[in-house]
Amino acid sequence: MLNVGVIGCGGMGKDHIKRLTNKIQGAKVVAVSDVFEEGAKEAAALAGGAKVYTDGKDLINDPDVDAVFIVSPGFAHTDSLLQAIEAGKRVFCEKPLATTAQDCKKIVDAEAASGKHLIQLGFMRRYDKGYVQVKEALRSGEYGEPLILHCTHRNPEVGTNYNTPMAVHDTAIHEIDTLHWLVDDEYESAQVIMPKVTKYSHSELKDPQIMLLRTKRGICIDVEVFVNCKFGYDINCEVVCEDGAIKMAEPSYPSIRKNAAVSTTIDTDCFVRFEDAYDTEVQNWVDCAKQGVINGPTAWDGYLAAVTADALVKAQETGQIEPIVTEEKPAFYK
Amino acid sequence: MLNVGVIGCGGMGKDHIKRLTNKIQGAKVVAVSDVFEEGAKEAAALAGGAKVYTDGKDLINDPDVDAVFIVSPGFAHTDSLLQAIEAGKRVFCEKPLATTAQDCKKIVDAEAASGKHLIQLGFMRRYDKGYVQVKEALRSGEYGEPLILHCTHRNPEVGTNYNTPMAVHDTAIHEIDTLHWLVDDEYESAQVIMPKVTKYSHSELKDPQIMLLRTKRGICIDVEVFVNCKFGYDINCEVVCEDGAIKMAEPSYPSIRKNAAVSTTIDTDCFVRFEDAYDTEVQNWVDCAKQGVINGPTAWDGYLAAVTADALVKAQETGQIEPIVTEEKPAFYK
Amino acid sequence: MLNVGVIGCGGMGKDHIKRLTNKIQGAKVVAVSDVFEEGAKEAAALAGGAKVYTDGKDLINDPDVDAVFIVSPGFAHTDSLLQAIEAGKRVFCEKPLATTAQDCKKIVDAEAASGKHLIQLGFMRRYDKGYVQVKEALRSGEYGEPLILHCTHRNPEVGTNYNTPMAVHDTAIHEIDTLHWLVDDEYESAQVIMPKVTKYSHSELKDPQIMLLRTKRGICIDVEVFVNCKFGYDINCEVVCEDGAIKMAEPSYPSIRKNAAVSTTIDTDCFVRFEDAYDTEVQNWVDCAKQGVINGPTAWDGYLAAVTADALVKAQETGQIEPIVTEEKPAFYK
Amino acid sequence: MLNVGVIGCGGMGKDHIKRLTNKIQGAKVVAVSDVFEEGAKEAAALAGGAKVYTDGKDLINDPDVDAVFIVSPGFAHTDSLLQAIEAGKRVFCEKPLATTAQDCKKIVDAEAASGKHLIQLGFMRRYDKGYVQVKEALRSGEYGEPLILHCTHRNPEVGTNYNTPMAVHDTAIHEIDTLHWLVDDEYESAQVIMPKVTKYSHSELKDPQIMLLRTKRGICIDVEVFVNCKFGYDINCEVVCEDGAIKMAEPSYPSIRKNAAVSTTIDTDCFVRFEDAYDTEVQNWVDCAKQGVINGPTAWDGYLAAVTADALVKAQETGQIEPIVTEEKPAFYK
Repeated sequence: MLNVGVIGCGGMGKDHIKRLTNKIQGAKVVAVSDVFEEGAKEAAALAGGAKVYTDGKDLINDPDVDAVFIVSPGFAHTDSLLQAIEAGKRVFCEKPLATTAQDCKKIVDAEAASGKHLIQLGFMRRYDKGYVQVKEALRSGEYGEPLILHCTHRNPEVGTNYNTPMAVHDTAIHEIDTLHWLVDDEYESAQVIMPKVTKYSHSELKDPQIMLLRTKRGICIDVEVFVNCKFGYDINCEVVCEDGAIKMAEPSYPSIRKNAAVSTTIDTDCFVRFEDAYDTEVQNWVDCAKQGVINGPTAWDGYLAAVTADALVKAQETGQIEPIVTEEKPAFYK
Repeated sequence: MLNVGVIGCGGMGKDHIKRLTNKIQGAKVVAVSDVFEEGAKEAAALAGGAKVYTDGKDLINDPDVDAVFIVSPGFAHTDSLLQAIEAGKRVFCEKPLATTAQDCKKIVDAEAASGKHLIQLGFMRRYDKGYVQVKEALRSGEYGEPLILHCTHRNPEVGTNYNTPMAVHDTAIHEIDTLHWLVDDEYESAQVIMPKVTKYSHSELKDPQIMLLRTKRGICIDVEVFVNCKFGYDINCEVVCEDGAIKMAEPSYPSIRKNAAVSTTIDTDCFVRFEDAYDTEVQNWVDCAKQGVINGPTAWDGYLAAVTADALVKAQETGQIEPIVTEEKPAFYK
Repeated sequence: MLNVGVIGCGGMGKDHIKRLTNKIQGAKVVAVSDVFEEGAKEAAALAGGAKVYTDGKDLINDPDVDAVFIVSPGFAHTDSLLQAIEAGKRVFCEKPLATTAQDCKKIVDAEAASGKHLIQLGFMRRYDKGYVQVKEALRSGEYGEPLILHCTHRNPEVGTNYNTPMAVHDTAIHEIDTLHWLVDDEYESAQVIMPKVTKYSHSELKDPQIMLLRTKRGICIDVEVFVNCKFGYDINCEVVCEDGAIKMAEPSYPSIRKNAAVSTTIDTDCFVRFEDAYDTEVQNWVDCAKQGVINGPTAWDGYLAAVTADALVKAQETGQIEPIVTEEKPAFYK
Repeated sequence: MLNVGVIGCGGMGKDHIKRLTNKIQGAKVVAVSDVFEEGAKEAAALAGGAKVYTDGKDLINDPDVDAVFIVSPGFAHTDSLLQAIEAGKRVFCEKPLATTAQDCKKIVDAEAASGKHLIQLGFMRRYDKGYVQVKEALRSGEYGEPLILHCTHRNPEVGTNYNTPMAVHDTAIHEIDTLHWLVDDEYESAQVIMPKVTKYSHSELKDPQIMLLRTKRGICIDVEVFVNCKFGYDINCEVVCEDGAIKMAEPSYPSIRKNAAVSTTIDTDCFVRFEDAYDTEVQNWVDCAKQGVINGPTAWDGYLAAVTADALVKAQETGQIEPIVTEEKPAFYK
């Protein structure tokens, strides 16, 4: 049994506590922490009782806590991660790793210096059955080298505070991590194309956008990001290879004949769409943490995502092709 | 140029006159006939001018008429067909060949006695691209012997005068002809299963029905006939073979993402669904008639359809497996 | 934590032990039993250590065993089930409940007499996401009453010892349970149609078959059972309702463009096809057993399946429509 | 009957002669012309006899020729088109209008000066049922403004003399014309992205390419051009609108279950893929020419295509976003 401490007891934190308590095999939430003590107490109740902290550092250093789950706001991640590294405890950290590439680098350096792989970052799409099937097809060698990826990330709608750079930081961030993992490559440059804006957007949000990424091997990626598409939460990915093209499966729903049409449901909620991926991700982390290893997205992946996101935001502003320049990948992460 | 005389100037007759005049290559409507002279005159105008008759026999015997198109009500077909055989003219006759198996047999015998293949019956589905593709797949030998056919014939709704036997005579009649042609076989027995009746039906109509046919080679066919299915005119056919299963293509429409669903249109009108098949059928008849041959459904096919329909209607009443007993196929039709 | 004892340590038994040990939350295999002690010892090792019995009765009566998992051969189920009922322990029993309708009735009577719902039968399809989605659609009321079900149960191939009645007992048995549950009804009559036999079958096996079932509400079901279809393990189900038709989703795989075709995988292995259903089924049983309830398929469902299967086997022989006559459903199971 | 003279009797010319002779209603090929007299004589035989010319000018000026069909090599179009304009005869001209934007402009000016709409350019895709359905959906207003188009133009393979600019001139030229027509807009800028080259290409051909076009209203278009994709001739088009996304139907083929997959044919030949479009295009030209009108792609569309193609070829070389600058559209073409 892995004794887990959870830092951050908002909506997402409570979801993870329920998951760890009711669905995951081999884990137990033994401590929770939140600056709002009431929230922490509610969360403890969801776990069937757990120690309550208001300072994440105390939770991390509690000897009853084997491993730490960080679901606090992004700005608080760096401190908790550095403390967990110092304590030598395994961590699951919801994305982002940190809010700046610089902080990400600090975490990467600290983990490398510790000599132990401790951090798994919460990019759940790598655990989605659809992406996994595509990756297996690519690995099979039957389709040759991937050359082009066509992707969409469509949301039914977003709140009025959602602005142009959030299309990168809150939305395309998932493609940023998933796609380079899918083709086992790193990014080289970024460009953003701004089509006519939908009538459902507002002055602070250019919507839709087409984000273009090129990898070091020369794979070219286009991602349509359309966060007020109205019709659904619609994630697609087609990989065009030298010997065939592979399109990720869409979620599985009955086909209905009614009203002069045959139709199939499109999800509207990202948590429904990726529910199984969240479960698999956390189960995998628990299984690995018990064996003292990490095999999911690393702190280095978090650093790459931050640098790539910065380049895309710059490209949104300049309209130019922007280079994506990262530090040399440390031997530790190879 | 084939000079065509059209007998029967109702809605379907006018459609065929417009088709022959505006879409078909190599034909000209030179005469029309209808017991209602006004209707005939309107039809003649659609052809850009044509002789007007009120007696089909006169049209048939007009030396300017090379070939005859019969679109009159079913009960009038026998007389016209026998006259055309006597006149030695090629005929396209809309289904049914005649309203009784006995009359069909009379026509078959007369045509065989004439020694010339003159009659093509209007079973247009044999010219539908979807069925033709399935037949080609079957002929390719790649799938081995067909063993089972699963079919649906669904209409959005029917009028209140439509009753139980009409599900055979007006609806399944198309499957009766098409399916034995598709697998190149003849029928041996029939059964009809009556499920719970839809709330959209009435006391004189059992709807839906499942019609079961067995061919002489042992192929088993199930046809769902559902004429108040509400959602569309939905024709499907899957052929299960020893080495694979072949499902006929559905009509081609864009797929639309809207309202949390991806959907594709289902036709609601049989003339839209089979518009191309009608055009191909008539063009084929014209091309063949000019060369003095017939290669579509024959009078013998009309006789088989009548006998099979009679067995299905009997099976509707008895609930039993009814034999389908036909005369020996004349050498003339082999 | 639910302490489970497993009776029967063959392939399927070992699969369930691995599942309970590695995937299911809240259960622990504490005892195993098999008449072959070696098999039982191997199974105990898979569980990370467990008591080993060679007599299921001893396992059932072990006070450390909270609940019993029966995966022994079918002929041994009756004795174990009656012992478990006597011991008042909750049971998960792989299908069949027993090998005769008479024995099934004995078990039903014993459970009813005990006054406690103890037995869940292993019809895993009720936990398959595809069927669950169809059932939810039916329950929504949006499609009106179901009238017809079209189903296929296709296997790539079967061994040479598989014969005609096994098409019912080993294959259609899944549809027998799932379909009446899906539409919340019971069966009234059965018929079996025997098409031309595929060249891949042998003298003792009529393959394919079309099995027809009618429910008490008048829903008509056709199931194509084709166990040497060669192309895959292909389970389909379409429910035709008064206000629309619902087709169960096919398993989710990428679509691949290669060799002049776009294609999607069809499973070839029933355990792969229903792997998630097995997991969900067992997790659900564990969760319920811990709360002292049963909410899956009951002993009564096992009895209904046995009576229905007997009628289908008789219908295979007679070619007639055979009635399905069951005892009155005890109040206990309502 | 429209008496047609055909200039150019190569493979494509002969195809059009067969089409005009055997499939099209209301036209007759009365004269043919080719610099190679033998080819012209063969072509005349296909038409069932026709006058033979070796100089297109003589054919154009033959008083028996009502209208002219130009299927000669592209470099010869300008002369023939100017002669036909002078003769005041209606013309169907296979693409390209001319080989330079300058020559296209000359033709446009001459036609406008003549005051009569005489020229239809052979962009057959506007007559393809798939594109027409998408255009109808766009016109319906149900989906709001189009914002993004995702397209593919994939060929199984090309000859070794096919080089990088031909990806524009011979391949994307179809998208160039079709897409602006589809959304009723004109182009503003072009960019070309060059992914890693497939192993099936050679040093003179960058394959695949992603061509990006922006229209004056701000619609952004991406076209994957991949001419050695190996798997088929695969034309796709998805229009993302404010109120829904519309994906063009794929060609209609049966779905086949075999070898653990369900698959549908992808065409491998562009003439098979667009056969119906060619027929509809030519029938439409004949019908219009007889009424003294033109309603297909105009000389102006040919000029726009030439200017756009030039910008794309420049963008292939520079890697930059290149402006597409055309003359003001003459009132004559509005």
